[in-house]
Amino acid sequence: MKKPMKIALLGLGTVGFGVYEFIQAHKDLELACAMSLVVPEGVTCPIVADIETILRDETIDTVVEVIGGLHPAYEFVTGALRAHKNVVTANKLLIAAHYRELVTLAGENGVSLRCTAAAGGGIPWLTSLERTAAQEPITRISGIMNGTTNYILDTMHRTGSSFADALSQAQQLGYAERNPADDLNGADIRRKLVISSNIAYGCVLDEAEVVTEGIEHITGADIAAFKRLNRVCKLIAASRRLENGVAAYIEPALMPPSMPESAIPQNYNLISLTGEHIGKQSFYGQGAGRYPTAYNILQDCLDVSRGVSGFYTDRLNEAHVDNSSIRRQYYVRVSGMDKWLQEKVDKILDYGMITKEVSVPEIHGWLKQRRRTDPGCFIASLR
Amino acid sequence: MKKPMKIALLGLGTVGFGVYEFIQAHKDLELACAMSLVVPEGVTCPIVADIETILRDETIDTVVEVIGGLHPAYEFVTGALRAHKNVVTANKLLIAAHYRELVTLAGENGVSLRCTAAAGGGIPWLTSLERTAAQEPITRISGIMNGTTNYILDTMHRTGSSFADALSQAQQLGYAERNPADDLNGADIRRKLVISSNIAYGCVLDEAEVVTEGIEHITGADIAAFKRLNRVCKLIAASRRLENGVAAYIEPALMPPSMPESAIPQNYNLISLTGEHIGKQSFYGQGAGRYPTAYNILQDCLDVSRGVSGFYTDRLNEAHVDNSSIRRQYYVRVSGMDKWLQEKVDKILDYGMITKEVSVPEIHGWLKQRRRTDPGCFIASLR
Repeated sequence: MKKPMKIALLGLGTVGFGVYEFIQAHKDLELACAMSLVVPEGVTCPIVADIETILRDETIDTVVEVIGGLHPAYEFVTGALRAHKNVVTANKLLIAAHYRELVTLAGENGVSLRCTAAAGGGIPWLTSLERTAAQEPITRISGIMNGTTNYILDTMHRTGSSFADALSQAQQLGYAERNPADDLNGADIRRKLVISSNIAYGCVLDEAEVVTEGIEHITGADIAAFKRLNRVCKLIAASRRLENGVAAYIEPALMPPSMPESAIPQNYNLISLTGEHIGKQSFYGQGAGRYPTAYNILQDCLDVSRGVSGFYTDRLNEAHVDNSSIRRQYYVRVSGMDKWLQEKVDKILDYGMITKEVSVPEIHGWLKQRRRTDPGCFIASLR
Repeated sequence: MKKPMKIALLGLGTVGFGVYEFIQAHKDLELACAMSLVVPEGVTCPIVADIETILRDETIDTVVEVIGGLHPAYEFVTGALRAHKNVVTANKLLIAAHYRELVTLAGENGVSLRCTAAAGGGIPWLTSLERTAAQEPITRISGIMNGTTNYILDTMHRTGSSFADALSQAQQLGYAERNPADDLNGADIRRKLVISSNIAYGCVLDEAEVVTEGIEHITGADIAAFKRLNRVCKLIAASRRLENGVAAYIEPALMPPSMPESAIPQNYNLISLTGEHIGKQSFYGQGAGRYPTAYNILQDCLDVSRGVSGFYTDRLNEAHVDNSSIRRQYYVRVSGMDKWLQEKVDKILDYGMITKEVSVPEIHGWLKQRRRTDPGCFIASLR
């Protein structure tokens, strides 16, 4: 019989405690110890005070990192990989920021690095990308990859509530953090898109190159205007493989009711990949939360204990973002006209206006300028 | 370096030739030979005439069976397992009919038996069930698992065409076979539900116990009536774990437009599982066709070559089907009244009627009797 995997758990917060419960309940996994500043009631495993104790312990084969944030997670994870321990993490901030270094380190040290919970919460999304990419080129990714913003948009559409009310409701239900800035401005979903695109296309994208517009400026009046257009607003992350580079961008998008994205409720995610032969495949499930996140962390541990090795890909090609081929019409709501808009406007609505087809870099470039004098303006592409 | 997996391919039909192309294109897989009565142009691998040649060849580690049908597939697959060869197959008829024997044989001979393409075409459905079931109890399965019937229903809803016209269109496009009986009467989807439920709940169901109603009796007038009810008709397979046994049934169902099933177009599938902690997860993709099916067969080969062993589960508990706890209202269209219906009718429509809540065994039992004198009658549950 195989010896159970021996795990050190870094972090006993919301997700960490869920992981703790799952490991304790699973016969193939053994929790050697945990490291955490705060120890919730009921935790019975040894608590260690410093990472060196874990790194020196040769009986520990896997480190699960659920502290979050860049530091000290970066030091702990790189230390664990260098000490020849497998790492399982949900830390999208860390993986997106240090992708090349971490994947290389795992390869050099012959250990696994898995982060399925970093994109799509409890959805087997990164593992599905891995499976497909092992067989054929993935040509596209797109979808709803942030539960907080989906909850807010869904609530505004369903109840007609204001952005502030929908946000505060999301916070009360634990779907939004006390400081939700990274969810609202798109930084969170951008990390997920970068990790997903890197795995799908075998490349390493620079986060800063991914054009990103969140939903922080949306208002109840915008939603009412979308209803008159018979569209549903969703925050969509999308990327596609180009002959030379990758298109990758995040923006609010107005979907017709016939598109499956329109029907995604509450804090759920819907993410799709398109492969050359397999066509489009979509994955739906809870995008965040204690148990969905802990679920994928456990799945990663089980995969590693079954012999799945390395990272999801070992291809680390340099690639740059080029969105110039993506052209769409946009809904634009500004507090006045300007020269560019005058030229591009196709139709003035009761509230807001619709542009002619413009490219992603063009409108996002304009938006950045415009925000300086019109900080509350808002755009959403028409799908 | 690992030696590539050495494969014998049984069958070079529509799916078989897709598998042939994929294997030839993949560096980790080697095609030793194929066995087929008809050999398509362009096939360059050795063709063997009899199965014994393959079973005796110790360099062949994996047999891919895409002949279909019960015989000689049963003899070939059991022979391969007994000869200690891994088996990858898309044959749902075979797996559903001989589930216990085949899973046991694979276990006894220490080889893998994989059949991901048998349910959900190119969707990673059985592997997702395997992953979830390894961690926590799956409580439910449901969804659209047959592309032919979804194509017919979708076409009838969209274009108002008759059943016969929609079927002939599906046949022209290759979405329905020349003899589509097993798709239309639900036998095909029943096999998929049985295999899925067995893996999800760790049991062995008898196909004959699964209450099954297909769409062979639906008419354009039924569809028009559903539109007036603002519902979309889909053929739904569903099962759930009970304290003592399993509920499992297949029937046309009338979905409100807000349910994701309503939006599934053409020959696509949408299948969902519900786990205790993970909640609901759904998987969308092409449910059939040369490349989607060949895709999952290749994925199975790659999984086996990566060290995935055995079947999706080794639990083979006896379980019986009990649908008595499932109660719903039904749309019923008959050519006259009878005593049971008189008692159960809740509302008479312009066309057809709606019953009060009745149990699945009750209405399907009544339907079976009723068909003897009213062969064209039709039912669909209200969701």
